[in-house]
Amino acid sequence: MPAPALNAEQIGDLLHEVFPQAFYPGCGLTIERVDHGDVRVRREYHEDYLRPGGTISGPTMMELADFAMYVAVFSAIGRQPLAVTTNLTINFLRKPARADLIAEARLMKIGKRLAVGAVNIYSDGVAEPVAHVTSTYSIPDNR
Amino acid sequence: MPAPALNAEQIGDLLHEVFPQAFYPGCGLTIERVDHGDVRVRREYHEDYLRPGGTISGPTMMELADFAMYVAVFSAIGRQPLAVTTNLTINFLRKPARADLIAEARLMKIGKRLAVGAVNIYSDGVAEPVAHVTSTYSIPDNR
Amino acid sequence: MPAPALNAEQIGDLLHEVFPQAFYPGCGLTIERVDHGDVRVRREYHEDYLRPGGTISGPTMMELADFAMYVAVFSAIGRQPLAVTTNLTINFLRKPARADLIAEARLMKIGKRLAVGAVNIYSDGVAEPVAHVTSTYSIPDNR
Amino acid sequence: MPAPALNAEQIGDLLHEVFPQAFYPGCGLTIERVDHGDVRVRREYHEDYLRPGGTISGPTMMELADFAMYVAVFSAIGRQPLAVTTNLTINFLRKPARADLIAEARLMKIGKRLAVGAVNIYSDGVAEPVAHVTSTYSIPDNR
Repeated sequence: MPAPALNAEQIGDLLHEVFPQAFYPGCGLTIERVDHGDVRVRREYHEDYLRPGGTISGPTMMELADFAMYVAVFSAIGRQPLAVTTNLTINFLRKPARADLIAEARLMKIGKRLAVGAVNIYSDGVAEPVAHVTSTYSIPDNR
Repeated sequence: MPAPALNAEQIGDLLHEVFPQAFYPGCGLTIERVDHGDVRVRREYHEDYLRPGGTISGPTMMELADFAMYVAVFSAIGRQPLAVTTNLTINFLRKPARADLIAEARLMKIGKRLAVGAVNIYSDGVAEPVAHVTSTYSIPDNR
Repeated sequence: MPAPALNAEQIGDLLHEVFPQAFYPGCGLTIERVDHGDVRVRREYHEDYLRPGGTISGPTMMELADFAMYVAVFSAIGRQPLAVTTNLTINFLRKPARADLIAEARLMKIGKRLAVGAVNIYSDGVAEPVAHVTSTYSIPDNR
Repeated sequence: MPAPALNAEQIGDLLHEVFPQAFYPGCGLTIERVDHGDVRVRREYHEDYLRPGGTISGPTMMELADFAMYVAVFSAIGRQPLAVTTNLTINFLRKPARADLIAEARLMKIGKRLAVGAVNIYSDGVAEPVAHVTSTYSIPDNR
């Protein structure tokens, strides 16, 4: 596996620069590990994310998966903030606990135009994933 | 088409009761039309939803689509707040304007266990959709 | 709506030329209607398509949806046989009858690199769709 | 991991009994490995599967993925031939070689009503997958 195009700190700085309303100190998102096209991020638990049934809402997981993919794309192709999601499919597998969510994203394809990845989302401390995501990012031409 | 199981006001009251952190006065979400399994909802524009490139972020659209499906499920089968999303696929089609988002959800199947719907998301005032979603809800057994 | 880039006969000729093992006289596939990015195709019923439960198999419907998308892409952008599917999501809605299957594909986006469409599949003579598909085709650069 | 509910030979016999038009001696499909909810199947290469560009067609891969999921469901819950696909999403990652296709399916959730799995499809002898699939099967009530 090659070295990542950007490391965790560089990706954090980039996100804070280009997407400050989503990624800022205290936002609850952490980039925990960055390898080339293979990353782990964390969403701190907050009771605002609960939905009826006392479980974490689907959109909270979708947002985290999309964030994990964005980080994975940067780890593979570098500073491309205009990369955009073209497609995302999520399957919800089991109810998340009232705990942090961890997302592990891995790119299965890194092409010139498209990057395709799979994301597993976990409740912190639970082995089986709570959701599985596949997603495609479109990569700008100016690459 | 049969009458909806719950009308827009009843669904709004139900959401405010069971999901107050997502649906409350001033939350920016409006239920605009409710027919049986066929609804329209609106997300008021806010600059917090912007992502790099000056367009509305994908998770904002995913959340709205999931909300529209939840409303559509209530419109067809009534008070079932424990209905949960099992699957959602979104295709992003074009950049949304800096404007309200409108989601039109229509259930294609209303079974005993599963409801399946399609959602088109629009920028207010633009004819072509900005995203297309299909999603499945699992309906609790106590129905 | 602009005129189609190729009409039904031209698309049939193209398919027979480039993909003879799939499209030939007697193959059971018919191109019934071609508008610009909006087409209807038919798969003649054959008992070989039945699966346990006496219903038409899922792969039969997936193949038909993919064929309908291919025809829709030709109708919009002309002779591009190297356009390839990058993504397909199918939701099965109800059991098809032992009858012909009809697929109606409509492109929701026709971009430089990607075409995205939705396909409804019907049992001949039944109003409600048996399956709903969304799919993305990648369009070659030489366009 | 518990023992599989049915082993490879038992699943082969079941398929030949209930789905003889798809699974018969010489059909080109082989069940290579069966663990509990985790299986590998193979589709022998045949030039009929080629599409324009000299690569194996998408529907060939979709059919194989669906077959792999069917086998995985049997491996986990036993003789349930009326289990049916409700949803399938495929992402095509790279062009398959002119070689056998191998599909590895693993169930991520085995619930009372739904089984959800992921499938990686490979060209024989190549490490990187050519396609990734997620799919949901609905399990009959009579279980």
